[in-house]
Amino acid sequence: MACVARPKAKRTLQEFALIRSLQRRFGQDGSPIIQGIGDDAAVVPSHPHQWLVITTDLLAEHIHFDLRTASFESVGYRAAMANLSDLAAMGATPRYGLVSLAIPKGRTQRDVDQLYRGMRKACRPHGVRLIGGDTSASQKGLFLNVTLIGTTAPGHVLFRRGARIGEGIYVTGTLGDARAGLYLLQESLRTATRQKSRLFPRSHRNVLIGRHLHPTARVREGRWLNRSRFASSAIDLSDGLSGDLRHVCAESNVGALVELDRVPISPSCRAYAESKHIDPVQLALAGGEDYELLFTVASKHQARMERQARNFGFHIARIGTIRPRDHGIRAVFHDGSVRPLPNTSYEHFR
Amino acid sequence: MACVARPKAKRTLQEFALIRSLQRRFGQDGSPIIQGIGDDAAVVPSHPHQWLVITTDLLAEHIHFDLRTASFESVGYRAAMANLSDLAAMGATPRYGLVSLAIPKGRTQRDVDQLYRGMRKACRPHGVRLIGGDTSASQKGLFLNVTLIGTTAPGHVLFRRGARIGEGIYVTGTLGDARAGLYLLQESLRTATRQKSRLFPRSHRNVLIGRHLHPTARVREGRWLNRSRFASSAIDLSDGLSGDLRHVCAESNVGALVELDRVPISPSCRAYAESKHIDPVQLALAGGEDYELLFTVASKHQARMERQARNFGFHIARIGTIRPRDHGIRAVFHDGSVRPLPNTSYEHFR
Repeated sequence: MACVARPKAKRTLQEFALIRSLQRRFGQDGSPIIQGIGDDAAVVPSHPHQWLVITTDLLAEHIHFDLRTASFESVGYRAAMANLSDLAAMGATPRYGLVSLAIPKGRTQRDVDQLYRGMRKACRPHGVRLIGGDTSASQKGLFLNVTLIGTTAPGHVLFRRGARIGEGIYVTGTLGDARAGLYLLQESLRTATRQKSRLFPRSHRNVLIGRHLHPTARVREGRWLNRSRFASSAIDLSDGLSGDLRHVCAESNVGALVELDRVPISPSCRAYAESKHIDPVQLALAGGEDYELLFTVASKHQARMERQARNFGFHIARIGTIRPRDHGIRAVFHDGSVRPLPNTSYEHFR
Repeated sequence: MACVARPKAKRTLQEFALIRSLQRRFGQDGSPIIQGIGDDAAVVPSHPHQWLVITTDLLAEHIHFDLRTASFESVGYRAAMANLSDLAAMGATPRYGLVSLAIPKGRTQRDVDQLYRGMRKACRPHGVRLIGGDTSASQKGLFLNVTLIGTTAPGHVLFRRGARIGEGIYVTGTLGDARAGLYLLQESLRTATRQKSRLFPRSHRNVLIGRHLHPTARVREGRWLNRSRFASSAIDLSDGLSGDLRHVCAESNVGALVELDRVPISPSCRAYAESKHIDPVQLALAGGEDYELLFTVASKHQARMERQARNFGFHIARIGTIRPRDHGIRAVFHDGSVRPLPNTSYEHFR
């Protein structure tokens, strides 16, 4: 799923202000809730030994993906992966999926087949089973809504709101790759001869486009961080580091200091940034859809957590520290100066 | 939600053939399932004392509703009610809802507010709480996906597949009202002067349009039929009697004989049919969105079930009998002749 118009970013402050105000009026009576709207997924008690973790994502053609640069298979794959990533950020085990499709005229059975192929590819390694769905016509554009249901032990959930002052800020994997891949796809769409993109080494190009079209949700890492109780908070980086760190700070009522030199950048992303004469950290700050996790860990757990991560083959990097709220959200730049972290996240309704 | 183009009908044979073929390839590994795609809702085991019942519905502007004849409030109301009705047909207790919205340009905060107001109005009496959602822009037309999660005791679920030869076929309420209401709305849209519709008594008009815009899902009736174990199968009449009875017969591998004189028709629907010189039973057979239940009851339970229904104030009517499969799906017409039941259900992709 390549976004030509705008990258997908579902959790923005304005948007959530809107939904929260509507939610409050839904009343407080009724079935019990552990976590409603406002985190990566909702959490409700199921029975004394289990909580349910539930997330839903709506993807619209021309808004979240462009079928000129993405196949149906990758649209399906990314739709499932976005939801898997939400469950990963809560530390939940994904179980069941429901898929709603609105299909415009001109799309064939084969297209829908490919879409499901992508979803299967994303879901199968996690044992997620498709249990329901709805199919409709659409007057214009394809719409795809995926709901995923996961489980977790009661009390074992990674919320955004758990970060405490002094804790380390960590991320999994490398950041900015998916955004660089998106830009490469957009360039090849604009450049009929593909001359420009040929200048950029094919091996790096494949890595970055692969990270954009087929990202990997950190489900295993999320479950490990949750069960081990190492992490005090977590979020998935679907809006980019800048935006998502802000969500954690807002929900936890804290500030943060990020060391930009420590943000993990892949060799391919670095090569792309060099070819464009930009700072690769910009791609990491603004670029969502890497579906890496950001999480916070108290000092006493850090050494053991880092050791276990190495043993399990999980790639993690410490990129900063949680600070008091009045410190704001700041960064140590490459020149050593400390300034506010640029807010380059995408707002849906601006 | 008034459908000018076509009534909503999500469970059609062709459509399900498509989805089922895709589902099979999702593989059999993974989390356990009691009922996947193919009934009103999915059922999965949650813990030894509870099953989860889950349903999802996607509504598209210009396909399922027309904002020229329906307010945002009634679109929200009907979206929630369609899902509540799916849970009612399974005999489940509705608990939690997730709502995804794709909003086109030009729609205001007030419109979205009204949409949620309608959903609240539908959900509140059942204690359903909104726990999550997603909001996106839409290039054209409003899209609304509602997912509802309910619960039931293990083994206590009303499937479509439970009907047995000799059992009575029952329905709740009266049928055809919502379709007549839809036609009245369409007429007033076509007739600028509203001259035609003025000929039809206002009191009947209000009843029928009310049944179209604000139907009531039979959640209480469904739970009662399930807990009492009176019903052997159930389905909600969202596609019309003709189409939905066919689903029960196909899933249960049986035939049916319907006595058309026994189909419950309201005085308002009868008056409308008379004014149009049509048989009101036609409206009941083809007209979905009454959200009444169709269910089957074994002879030994019928007297006690009918007595309890009277005591609880539930309106039910016996309209026929389950027959062997090779009998087909037939009806006793008003003239006493027995012929195949007309298949007037709406197919999505034809």
